[in-house]
Amino acid sequence: MWRGVIDEYRERLPIEEGVQAVTLGEGNTPLVEAPRVADQIGFGGRLLLKYEGLNPTASFKDRGMTVAISVAAASGCEAVICASTGNTSASGAAYAARAGMKAIVIIPEGRIALGKLSQALAHGATVVSIDGNFDQAMKVVTELTRRCNVVVVNSINPYRIQGQKTAAFEICDVLGAGVVTSRPRMMGFQAAGADPIVRGRVIENPETVATAIRIGNPASWKTAEAARDQSGGIIESVTDEEILVAYSMLASGEGVFVEPASAASLAGLRKVCDAGGIEDTATVVCTLTGHGLKDPATATHESPEPISARADAAEIIRLLKL
Amino acid sequence: MWRGVIDEYRERLPIEEGVQAVTLGEGNTPLVEAPRVADQIGFGGRLLLKYEGLNPTASFKDRGMTVAISVAAASGCEAVICASTGNTSASGAAYAARAGMKAIVIIPEGRIALGKLSQALAHGATVVSIDGNFDQAMKVVTELTRRCNVVVVNSINPYRIQGQKTAAFEICDVLGAGVVTSRPRMMGFQAAGADPIVRGRVIENPETVATAIRIGNPASWKTAEAARDQSGGIIESVTDEEILVAYSMLASGEGVFVEPASAASLAGLRKVCDAGGIEDTATVVCTLTGHGLKDPATATHESPEPISARADAAEIIRLLKL
Repeated sequence: MWRGVIDEYRERLPIEEGVQAVTLGEGNTPLVEAPRVADQIGFGGRLLLKYEGLNPTASFKDRGMTVAISVAAASGCEAVICASTGNTSASGAAYAARAGMKAIVIIPEGRIALGKLSQALAHGATVVSIDGNFDQAMKVVTELTRRCNVVVVNSINPYRIQGQKTAAFEICDVLGAGVVTSRPRMMGFQAAGADPIVRGRVIENPETVATAIRIGNPASWKTAEAARDQSGGIIESVTDEEILVAYSMLASGEGVFVEPASAASLAGLRKVCDAGGIEDTATVVCTLTGHGLKDPATATHESPEPISARADAAEIIRLLKL
Repeated sequence: MWRGVIDEYRERLPIEEGVQAVTLGEGNTPLVEAPRVADQIGFGGRLLLKYEGLNPTASFKDRGMTVAISVAAASGCEAVICASTGNTSASGAAYAARAGMKAIVIIPEGRIALGKLSQALAHGATVVSIDGNFDQAMKVVTELTRRCNVVVVNSINPYRIQGQKTAAFEICDVLGAGVVTSRPRMMGFQAAGADPIVRGRVIENPETVATAIRIGNPASWKTAEAARDQSGGIIESVTDEEILVAYSMLASGEGVFVEPASAASLAGLRKVCDAGGIEDTATVVCTLTGHGLKDPATATHESPEPISARADAAEIIRLLKL
């Protein structure tokens, strides 16, 4: 049985031997072949989808969180804290509960639909709504981390990114590559309204339908650029419209339901294919970061309304041309 | 890599050799140790949780749907149909999309929040809202199945239950039991407002917070009774209140977020333990059928409101007693 990413890849993670893994069985997510979508975007190679929405809290964040929380728990810390309204708070609260630790989530007042917090609330996190914006919430988090025995689990926690790299290990393992001898090309795509790396400057008020990547000043900015440069990759932007087209392709073309942010990878691949930027001999993996159930409203909004009919088979046969 | 339940267990499924699996990598879900919850309910044995919410469409239904849709696709059928507002329509629509088939979902008019259909809609299902109740929707489905080249994927489809049994195979495999020589005791728990097997009669208007098991006349009634009788098991009811207590225990005690129906198994175990009906040497597996994200409203409803505070660390330290 799969033991979670720490015990599967412990020798490649900065975790001391005695540290016990706080795990919910994260990782080991499906790598799904996507021939129909490949056709649709005019890509002649092999396209695979790494479906990270099937992690315990329905996003890739669990890979990093298991490492961050395990280390925090081993250090004797009793509480973790983050400023987040989405996937980070969901994952942080779940793993804190698993470890028997408290979780504190700081959110900006009045801007958050309670539904977005359903996971953090369910996992028993203490949610504090402050009279300030996200930057101020982050400042409060930083100060609390300095003054109290709490560990921050936002992306600035260095163990997060260490755990997240295990998705790449799994992809190589499943493709039969193990330890690879050539470097895969890393391509990153930001939403056009939240694309600081593409523009080379902080975006003060990022806006995009892809809420999980609505970030104006990413914590791993420099390392993302380094990954791009060292691998001959690119970091470009895709519009919300392109993201939503890819989002629908995945759900209705392959049966893979993701949150909009996840579709940025396919939207980007489509753009690169259109520009002739990729060989038909290539194997491409699109990482799909979160499950579509994270954002049911977008699915409903992007779909046609139900058809109304009498409770009569003949009428329905006629209406649907069956 | 895990190949989905058909190719992992093909020799134990009624699937002909030539039938290609329509799969999204379902199955292979975590079996999570739950020592904290075991303590909380006073169970001294080993408690494990089979976390079926980590299937592709976030419920156990995918196990049966991969079999039903694979067989339908191999037969040359071009559309599947169901009457469902929840997990069945989500799973049916996803696997139909994966197979390149049409999916039709018949729902009773005016009783369904559109959010509950977000998955079916995202996967491109045609949703027809009829002026009638659920029974009439099911009648329309049956008639359409008779008159057109469509396959029903409600529970009356016999391939569904065949696929669903693979959860038991996985549990035995992971516990190192393989093909078991003794029969596990099967315990089933229905919600008190939707407990036809417990009462021995159809429930006309079933009611429970656990919407996924709000069923008054289950398709597998007789086989459920047979499983109970042949294994020395029980089928009892648990109240909505008991379900919600178990629901919170799982999320805040172990970090495992489920939809309310899933918590019926733990609520039942707790009741059995209270009555002294289980030995402390036992290994018990609770099947958790669906992910908590299927029903975010219940999580929000069952949790305290966020605390309001100024954007000031000192105030928050005082408020939270950090």
